[in-house]
Amino acid sequence: MTSTMNRQWRLAARPVGLPEPSVWQWTTEALPTAGAGEILVEVLYLSLDPAMRGWMNEGKSYVPPVALGAVMRALGIGRVIASGDPGFTVGDTVVGITGVQSHALLPAAEATKVDPALAPLPSFLGVLGMTGMTAYFGLLDVGQPKPGETVVVSGAAGAVGALVGQIAKLKGCRVIGIAGGADKCRYLTEQLGFDGAIDYKAEDVKKALRALAPKGVDIYFDNVGGDILDAVLSQLARHARVVICGAISQYNNTTAVKGPANYMSLLVNRARMEGFVVFDYAARYGEAVREIAGWLAAGKVTAKEDVVRGLEHFPEALLKLFKGENFGKLVLQVAG
Amino acid sequence: MTSTMNRQWRLAARPVGLPEPSVWQWTTEALPTAGAGEILVEVLYLSLDPAMRGWMNEGKSYVPPVALGAVMRALGIGRVIASGDPGFTVGDTVVGITGVQSHALLPAAEATKVDPALAPLPSFLGVLGMTGMTAYFGLLDVGQPKPGETVVVSGAAGAVGALVGQIAKLKGCRVIGIAGGADKCRYLTEQLGFDGAIDYKAEDVKKALRALAPKGVDIYFDNVGGDILDAVLSQLARHARVVICGAISQYNNTTAVKGPANYMSLLVNRARMEGFVVFDYAARYGEAVREIAGWLAAGKVTAKEDVVRGLEHFPEALLKLFKGENFGKLVLQVAG
Repeated sequence: MTSTMNRQWRLAARPVGLPEPSVWQWTTEALPTAGAGEILVEVLYLSLDPAMRGWMNEGKSYVPPVALGAVMRALGIGRVIASGDPGFTVGDTVVGITGVQSHALLPAAEATKVDPALAPLPSFLGVLGMTGMTAYFGLLDVGQPKPGETVVVSGAAGAVGALVGQIAKLKGCRVIGIAGGADKCRYLTEQLGFDGAIDYKAEDVKKALRALAPKGVDIYFDNVGGDILDAVLSQLARHARVVICGAISQYNNTTAVKGPANYMSLLVNRARMEGFVVFDYAARYGEAVREIAGWLAAGKVTAKEDVVRGLEHFPEALLKLFKGENFGKLVLQVAG
Repeated sequence: MTSTMNRQWRLAARPVGLPEPSVWQWTTEALPTAGAGEILVEVLYLSLDPAMRGWMNEGKSYVPPVALGAVMRALGIGRVIASGDPGFTVGDTVVGITGVQSHALLPAAEATKVDPALAPLPSFLGVLGMTGMTAYFGLLDVGQPKPGETVVVSGAAGAVGALVGQIAKLKGCRVIGIAGGADKCRYLTEQLGFDGAIDYKAEDVKKALRALAPKGVDIYFDNVGGDILDAVLSQLARHARVVICGAISQYNNTTAVKGPANYMSLLVNRARMEGFVVFDYAARYGEAVREIAGWLAAGKVTAKEDVVRGLEHFPEALLKLFKGENFGKLVLQVAG
């Protein structure tokens, strides 16, 4: 059954602090018509990502901010229900920036056809999507792990973190994950093969690192920023690489971002801290997808998804990310 | 005339905040005797460097802290007055870690003979010494400037900063210096050929950078940390390199170091921040000395020294560094 209305979440106000439900506006409007070179997509799943918080702020960043009154930006996967482009047929499965809505009108050039037989649909938003690309290029290209090195990753039970740790293991590294709560930590060591896990809610991260990584941290893949970044900086090995992927602990600050007070450890340890934006690697996504799909098929990598059902639950679902309540890649099931 | 007593400044207490004169103890003792493999050096000039503040703190760093009661560590140049080593003759001029004293007993292996005819003695502590090596390798190896890029350097009228800017000009870069006071800024643009200068005491650094570097900062060579580091981080160009050489604004903090709140600019701009320690380049000092000496001889680089006379003035002289009162490479003339 195809709805005749498009249901949408629009950004009604710029959040101060956490994106409370009051920043969103629920709208419905008639389904648009696919013109020449366009496709109309029924959205099946949406990817909910920490980066979305940044897109809600005004000001220069790596992508323009979402305009007030606009449908919230999001990556989605869906099914083509009308096509004005010869490259797409009704029934095709596509990935694209659909936005947080039940239906999206996309320029054909901005949609990517995928084969739904290859993997469950949410995987195309996670381990084979932006999440996977982020973990793959951030760890391998920016971090440049070598066998025997010690890799620490924060947000380790999150979508990116869990994959970073597993890829690091495949590259012969010792891997320590930092996550919140005993369940997540057990998952890292018992299910994903991490060599150690630190529960930042219950342990002193610096002390725990000293015990688990007595020779220091060669690569730190940072998803969280804040105090945990500072704790890891204090334990760097010589020539360490700190990969700045995100800073979820700071995204909802109402006061200034807490800069890493221990950044002079970069000097003492001849280390570097480097940021990256996954979109820069677009030309090499194919290479990464093939390698990750191979690992998945061989059972060398597992991906956990945390699926919330119902477009209407978007505001609460998004908040799970910032409260550390998601366990695995967070996706919103919109239909299907 | 050679004194028969060794006059020394010893570290009597670990400073909290600025190294006030009360942390030092003045001692005199009989001149030591040079045993086999040792040389006795009459110290002529001492290098006073911001890094000395770090050596006074307890705790792990890139060199061990100066022990309480020990002669303060310093790089010096002097004349051999007694030799127990066949490689050295009385009258030789040597550079080494002499410490803050009038005479130093050095293992011959830790002294480097220099030719005093090549340059004024203080140059061997400055532009041809650690200062020069720091500027050369920090800018060229860590920063990797390319012609046409915009290079910003803080502490620009200091010994390292002035040389960084001049080398960057020689490499075809646009150079903007940040310094305190109109005199220093005029020196940068009128004497050293910098393309622009920002007086951080009188101007809003961020605004000034926006005007002077509208396309963003490709390389930032940071000697100061603190608010200036944050201001420059906010103006990075894509793929910028931030070279962490020092953080003089933070060395005397009695509260926590101010971490760079704008560090996420590294992510947005796919940039990196990297520290280094000049000692790692020891095997390549010869290469750098030859190139810098050539520039000096050709008048392509000028080096300014700020000479304070008298070992007894060491405590006040050192404070000049942290109060921004030195103008050029600060050296203490001990004798000669």
